[in-house]
Amino acid sequence: MKKFLIDTIELHVRFSEVDSLGVVWHGHYLRYFEDGREAFGKKYGLGYLDYYAQGYVVPIVTVQCDYKQVLRYGDKIIVETTYTPCESAKINFTYRLLNAVTGELVVTGSTTQVFLNKDKFTLQLTNPDFFTDWKVAQGLI
Amino acid sequence: MKKFLIDTIELHVRFSEVDSLGVVWHGHYLRYFEDGREAFGKKYGLGYLDYYAQGYVVPIVTVQCDYKQVLRYGDKIIVETTYTPCESAKINFTYRLLNAVTGELVVTGSTTQVFLNKDKFTLQLTNPDFFTDWKVAQGLI
Amino acid sequence: MKKFLIDTIELHVRFSEVDSLGVVWHGHYLRYFEDGREAFGKKYGLGYLDYYAQGYVVPIVTVQCDYKQVLRYGDKIIVETTYTPCESAKINFTYRLLNAVTGELVVTGSTTQVFLNKDKFTLQLTNPDFFTDWKVAQGLI
Amino acid sequence: MKKFLIDTIELHVRFSEVDSLGVVWHGHYLRYFEDGREAFGKKYGLGYLDYYAQGYVVPIVTVQCDYKQVLRYGDKIIVETTYTPCESAKINFTYRLLNAVTGELVVTGSTTQVFLNKDKFTLQLTNPDFFTDWKVAQGLI
Repeated sequence: MKKFLIDTIELHVRFSEVDSLGVVWHGHYLRYFEDGREAFGKKYGLGYLDYYAQGYVVPIVTVQCDYKQVLRYGDKIIVETTYTPCESAKINFTYRLLNAVTGELVVTGSTTQVFLNKDKFTLQLTNPDFFTDWKVAQGLI
Repeated sequence: MKKFLIDTIELHVRFSEVDSLGVVWHGHYLRYFEDGREAFGKKYGLGYLDYYAQGYVVPIVTVQCDYKQVLRYGDKIIVETTYTPCESAKINFTYRLLNAVTGELVVTGSTTQVFLNKDKFTLQLTNPDFFTDWKVAQGLI
Repeated sequence: MKKFLIDTIELHVRFSEVDSLGVVWHGHYLRYFEDGREAFGKKYGLGYLDYYAQGYVVPIVTVQCDYKQVLRYGDKIIVETTYTPCESAKINFTYRLLNAVTGELVVTGSTTQVFLNKDKFTLQLTNPDFFTDWKVAQGLI
Repeated sequence: MKKFLIDTIELHVRFSEVDSLGVVWHGHYLRYFEDGREAFGKKYGLGYLDYYAQGYVVPIVTVQCDYKQVLRYGDKIIVETTYTPCESAKINFTYRLLNAVTGELVVTGSTTQVFLNKDKFTLQLTNPDFFTDWKVAQGLI
């Protein structure tokens, strides 16, 4: 049985993401996390539209980000997105951003999402069936 | 009869809006225009939620922006937003951004919006009644 | 002796900050935190340009954000920014965002910044004198 | 002799780019234009860092954008970026964004950039030699 699922994508730093110090503005990393999460969702059938089709939206309730190195204009980045299952009705991802050329660890982070009914925005307290099925299909439980 | 309506607000340049050259990234000016447009809407009863309550959304179909001077971190800006009525079913605004300290003209621009049915996204070809009423109430026609 | 310094500002949610679920996209909250931090800096003489004049840049090395309620277009927000001194050469802020109308707590968060030499980007391991002086002047130590 | 140079890239719409109407917020298109311009620069040796190495920065002085269709979350976009030479010391690009699936024209636009001395930000009134050389090398003059 697998303990986690992982996906990696490569991005590059855009001009508009760099601040007056010549490095990526700290807030843009949440976009890189989302790029990683969306690519993960596409690969493993767990995209926003998949949740929606099942009757849920999955807003982020916690985000955390640690900055270890800076990125500059044109830098190539590896975004490594890891899903680790948990028992509660939550979706936890961790992220590692690496400089694609030097291999240096640039940023680590994590997000937690919950399930809300897509119409009423009420919190789903237990794991939706489709999500449990997905975990089974992925060999995670 | 008035030829136009005008509103001004004061903004300041945020750190996250400045690029690696130390000046505001050109794309952020569309946000300043929108800030001006939203303040205008609040003042004159023509906000996005007012349109929506009447059954319309009003997307932008043209935007144009001329950059004459740069803005730097911390600069104070005057955004001057002017509505000029036209006969067709469109909403035209022009913008002038001034450096609030030096009075220099920094940027000029314009936007055109159209009326879409809020549910079907179909184009409204003639001026909605509420909009004509608004122009009358403002002394513009 | 004071244990902390606090500043509050009022913001409102812009149209461009709201996502397709009709609520503020989670990443924009880091901008609200920065708005709070910049207003705090202006009030207490601890702005980015003040650091720079002393020879430092102060990048964020950790950010954390917990989302408790959603914000919608037009909502008014109170951003409460609190500085709490610590012994190490770091700058710690915590944030509380409140719905200005209902008083509900919307988001809490925190950031940590470090001092880098503005030219060499080398880490300053001890508190710069000007920063210790600032803490004394504010009655924090 | 060529009349113009063209480059195309494929993008997809990110969740964070979609507004509360479910369509890409109009301001984000300037980022798509910049993505196109950066890819063009990489392909033809005319990137921001190439200009900088020659002593210039090339800020945008005019941008214009016409919106014909909407884009939604997940849509795939073709960005077609065309450089057309002119005699004055300016860099003109035009853009066409197409829905990659339907082929529909979504947005057209244009930008004009000028050459500034990278240190003094003074305007370069005549074409820099390196730029004329580049046009010759590309078979444009």
